[in-house]
Amino acid sequence: MSKPYNFYSGPAILPEEVLEKSIDAIRDFAGTKLSILEISHRSKAFVAAMEEARNLVKKLLQLDENKEVLFQHGGASQQFLAVPYNLLSRDKTAAYFDTGQWSTKAIAEAQNFGNVEVIASSKDKNYDYIPKEWIGEETLQHKQFSYVHITTNNTIFGTQWSNSLIDKLFAQTQTPIVADMSSDIFSRQMDFNRFGLIYAGAQKNMGPAGTTLVIVDRNLLGKKQEFIPTLLDYNNQIKAESMLNTPSVFAVYVSLLTLQWIEKQGLKQVETTNSAKAKLLYDTIDSSKIFEAVTFGEDRSKMNVCFKTADAETDKKFLAFAEENNLLGLAGYRTVGGFRASIYNAMPLAGVQKLVDCMQKFEADLA
Amino acid sequence: MSKPYNFYSGPAILPEEVLEKSIDAIRDFAGTKLSILEISHRSKAFVAAMEEARNLVKKLLQLDENKEVLFQHGGASQQFLAVPYNLLSRDKTAAYFDTGQWSTKAIAEAQNFGNVEVIASSKDKNYDYIPKEWIGEETLQHKQFSYVHITTNNTIFGTQWSNSLIDKLFAQTQTPIVADMSSDIFSRQMDFNRFGLIYAGAQKNMGPAGTTLVIVDRNLLGKKQEFIPTLLDYNNQIKAESMLNTPSVFAVYVSLLTLQWIEKQGLKQVETTNSAKAKLLYDTIDSSKIFEAVTFGEDRSKMNVCFKTADAETDKKFLAFAEENNLLGLAGYRTVGGFRASIYNAMPLAGVQKLVDCMQKFEADLA
Repeated sequence: MSKPYNFYSGPAILPEEVLEKSIDAIRDFAGTKLSILEISHRSKAFVAAMEEARNLVKKLLQLDENKEVLFQHGGASQQFLAVPYNLLSRDKTAAYFDTGQWSTKAIAEAQNFGNVEVIASSKDKNYDYIPKEWIGEETLQHKQFSYVHITTNNTIFGTQWSNSLIDKLFAQTQTPIVADMSSDIFSRQMDFNRFGLIYAGAQKNMGPAGTTLVIVDRNLLGKKQEFIPTLLDYNNQIKAESMLNTPSVFAVYVSLLTLQWIEKQGLKQVETTNSAKAKLLYDTIDSSKIFEAVTFGEDRSKMNVCFKTADAETDKKFLAFAEENNLLGLAGYRTVGGFRASIYNAMPLAGVQKLVDCMQKFEADLA
Repeated sequence: MSKPYNFYSGPAILPEEVLEKSIDAIRDFAGTKLSILEISHRSKAFVAAMEEARNLVKKLLQLDENKEVLFQHGGASQQFLAVPYNLLSRDKTAAYFDTGQWSTKAIAEAQNFGNVEVIASSKDKNYDYIPKEWIGEETLQHKQFSYVHITTNNTIFGTQWSNSLIDKLFAQTQTPIVADMSSDIFSRQMDFNRFGLIYAGAQKNMGPAGTTLVIVDRNLLGKKQEFIPTLLDYNNQIKAESMLNTPSVFAVYVSLLTLQWIEKQGLKQVETTNSAKAKLLYDTIDSSKIFEAVTFGEDRSKMNVCFKTADAETDKKFLAFAEENNLLGLAGYRTVGGFRASIYNAMPLAGVQKLVDCMQKFEADLA
């Protein structure tokens, strides 16, 4: 049996080349004759790898000198906590967009630190769109928010902030924007310097589970007078170059390998390929008589494509058919149902083509 | 060149068998045809691995049914925070033993949550012993501490709480004992059920950096009325079976492989081998005319053996000689100097023998 195509939403598919190089490093990391799994994080070889990873993030996202890049423990969920710990004082208010489960969790955590105002939500339609009603109404400028928090891509519901919608948000406010980009970082180009803070769990487009990228504008830090735990204080982590305690060595290294793989293509090419993959799949869904989309228009995620058939029984049959054809991880999230094809950077166009072929064969067989 | 012996203090040496099996799992995890680096943490195969890891911890340490086993993010340092968050209320006091840098950091973090009383410290002699003055004085019984915190092994200073000293502590108090066992978990037998909470970063005796083991008596939890962040709340983690968010999948899996390697020998045999390794090295130091020990008696760590020569110049020469002989990571911590041979479970007796041979050859050459 050849290797299956992995459509899981995360931890998710990684490039073959990255897997092979990670194996090389388990055998002998950077010529040290020691394994990456057992080498000291203070060794010259790993310190260099950590620095290269940070620098590659800066290069790929064209970050300016005010931005600090950190590799943190604990997954993006820990940033739901770290963000308000660093940026939200007890007597201040932060604005959050509620665009799905991850936003909701971020909101719940922030409420323990200060005031939270949910300025827009798509909960009314089970999060199948990105809210736009805030545009043209009272501008964000008039409110004194500590920051505005968005989740740029919503894995469960298959929605994504389009570049143009993000542009509109920035046009309306000088308030620092904090973005959870866990599931679409490094998938497209944009001006990342406009964000006050970006965080992203590695396990979709950047590496394996076990580390989280944080990009923070250092001008936002050091203003809060309240207690911040040592490990969660971004200023401490900046000073320690992400090694305040032992980092998640292997996860950082595999992230570096993935960043190198992205660099070889360039972010522009990555975006072009991602658009082609998403177009192929959405076009197939839209032209099908049995499959239907869950999301529409510019809100459609290019990372997680959600769709379904008219009934749960047919859904089940297609899932089984897909698995027989070596297409794994296509079941939709339990509150959404149907299918979710996660087509992150490492999913080749050939994988999407195979999925599309399977969908068309399944439909033809039903007719 | 053959593989060097890795004497680094952590991340540290892992068994060859564990490295090979981790490579197998990067190629094909548990017959799934997917890599352990890209498989969903909700997949049956990984859920089973996580459960097996938890159960193996229970089996190896013979834990009773009140104990919950968790694999957490963030390293042991994050537990410096999680422990008081869960167990120390603002108006209560916790007792801490200060036996070195890690204790000191744990104390500093706890002071943000409630009162901390340092009931004994070995700071007066740069932490080269484990304090014993508290014994026979006022018993801990009389004080209403929320818990007593100890660091069972101190990597930097080469000291370790002996089993008999731990027994004495338990004989004096009913207060729950919280132990940071990051650098000696699974290295020896004892009654682990007496502890209220045990935590240990994986990267010495259990696996690679990236996950932390927590063993907690569930009867201690749920008593604190104050806010606990979602991810740091042990009760939440217990309910979610360590998957409240995406766990550090690969680090947990390599920990499972290491636990399986320990199980094959049995903890008793592991302890016997560790004692033999430590005896060989300390005997060599004690009988040498140029090497001298830093720690003495029952406080000597069987995990990190610290020693030195009479002058920094000779230290430097021996370090170079050791490196030429493929013995890596022997430099002592910068505040202690000299040498530190970390001889965790995975260091074979042959590695210690080679070190001893080198020490004797170096000494003979000097004479």
